[in-house]
Amino acid sequence: MAKKSTKKDDRPDRLRELLRVPPGTETDLTAYDAEAVPVGPEDKAAGVAATAAMAERLAELQERLYAAGTAGDRRRLLLVLQGMDTCGKGGTVKHVIGHFNPAGCRIRAFKAPTPEEQDHHFLWRINRELPRSGEIGIFDRSHYEDVLIARVRELAPREQIRRRYDEINAFEKALAEDGVTLIKVFLHISYEQQRRRLLQRLDNPDKHWKFNVGDIEERALWPAYQKAYELALTRCSTAEAPWYVVPADRKWYRNWAVSQLLLEHLEELDPRYPAAGGFDVEESRKQLLAS
Amino acid sequence: MAKKSTKKDDRPDRLRELLRVPPGTETDLTAYDAEAVPVGPEDKAAGVAATAAMAERLAELQERLYAAGTAGDRRRLLLVLQGMDTCGKGGTVKHVIGHFNPAGCRIRAFKAPTPEEQDHHFLWRINRELPRSGEIGIFDRSHYEDVLIARVRELAPREQIRRRYDEINAFEKALAEDGVTLIKVFLHISYEQQRRRLLQRLDNPDKHWKFNVGDIEERALWPAYQKAYELALTRCSTAEAPWYVVPADRKWYRNWAVSQLLLEHLEELDPRYPAAGGFDVEESRKQLLAS
Repeated sequence: MAKKSTKKDDRPDRLRELLRVPPGTETDLTAYDAEAVPVGPEDKAAGVAATAAMAERLAELQERLYAAGTAGDRRRLLLVLQGMDTCGKGGTVKHVIGHFNPAGCRIRAFKAPTPEEQDHHFLWRINRELPRSGEIGIFDRSHYEDVLIARVRELAPREQIRRRYDEINAFEKALAEDGVTLIKVFLHISYEQQRRRLLQRLDNPDKHWKFNVGDIEERALWPAYQKAYELALTRCSTAEAPWYVVPADRKWYRNWAVSQLLLEHLEELDPRYPAAGGFDVEESRKQLLAS
Repeated sequence: MAKKSTKKDDRPDRLRELLRVPPGTETDLTAYDAEAVPVGPEDKAAGVAATAAMAERLAELQERLYAAGTAGDRRRLLLVLQGMDTCGKGGTVKHVIGHFNPAGCRIRAFKAPTPEEQDHHFLWRINRELPRSGEIGIFDRSHYEDVLIARVRELAPREQIRRRYDEINAFEKALAEDGVTLIKVFLHISYEQQRRRLLQRLDNPDKHWKFNVGDIEERALWPAYQKAYELALTRCSTAEAPWYVVPADRKWYRNWAVSQLLLEHLEELDPRYPAAGGFDVEESRKQLLAS
């Protein structure tokens, strides 16, 4: 089967159309090349430059989104990052926040659920961390863990996992209807790239704290995780909340692609600065000059 | 009375000693020059360069603090930002987070308390947002609002406000003993600078959303707020949790000074990467290479 990255002739105008998992189709991750550069900059220097060139526009769009939120615009954005260990979720969070004013972002990393979280439905802890009007939420892992590690490690009965896909779709549809633009990103790395990144952690004593033997145990379950991701992408890439597969073996491409996805969505939202509300600009100017 | 900024000959080795409000002394804010450049870079180009030169060191120290936190080191840092409207709290948050990995930061802006927050002791909402082990907390406003606007606007009886200073000191002492390094920064701007910044918002329609008539009403209470700040700095600059007065009329100096304060405190903490815990590096390498 041809790697999707080779379809250079078909490249659509927008990255989101190229990377989106078409709703209703079976996802086969082996058809996606994690090293691919399917559209956009083709080398690191060009990628870094293209990403930097987006920064001002992204910052302005975020400020507009936030400003609109203070005036009753309920729209908000939620970036969900998922992927295998070492795929670069943390690095992506750091990169993305660099574009934005952190005051308008709500960043949350979801780890193994606490006893309190386990006492609730799996969407309970997610609901508490959603972005408010005008904000950009950034999730490092998410409710998808409950159909990923939960499936692979059999943390819940298979029948319950199956119900969760529908619950997730209903949840995300309700969010979308309430003004949330969901951008769900699977950071796709190759098995070989994960080995290299884990070895780098071992090679540098300053990185040993990032390593634990559990990483090797999880890696041994790679095929089961890929299957779990394929199911999640197949069942939960919907019209309201599609999944995007971002090739993530190259960090510069990953950063460019996620920035570009954010830009395309923010440009579509096209939020506007609200007009002066409840005050007379000239009168206020006079008062200030006299103060 | 001589402005403190002119004491160039007395400059101590460390910024924190120069800017610290000495515990047990009466604070007179009129003695502090908001335009001052009391130590360090003397113009914008030098300030921006000096701040950029700190970035790598700050990032490494934060990573070490975070890494140590994963191995049982309970130490954490809390930057508290206070000051009059337009003093640059938001700009400082954006600047500071630029140095760090946001995954290790806990940023919170405290606004007017919600009905639920009002139903609790004023420290309740603060407790919920404190940094965890290894994290850097950044508060845009804080529990000090309850002795600042609460005093000026008489939101609580004067006797209750008086008790709050002691409650704050006891609270912060307990935090310090539990491993929290508090850096409480008063971003000091002049009355004239606030007028300029508010006028700038009126001059630019894209900034109108940041303005409301309440800003002019609050500005009319400037002397009462300065008095409330003097009391808070006098009563609550303690050995465990001192206040720092940062001249903030010049944004580049404000950014340099806050970065420098963070650097001095992190260098004193000198957190260390933990050793490999619970695994054999060579054995893990072999397993990975075979996988």
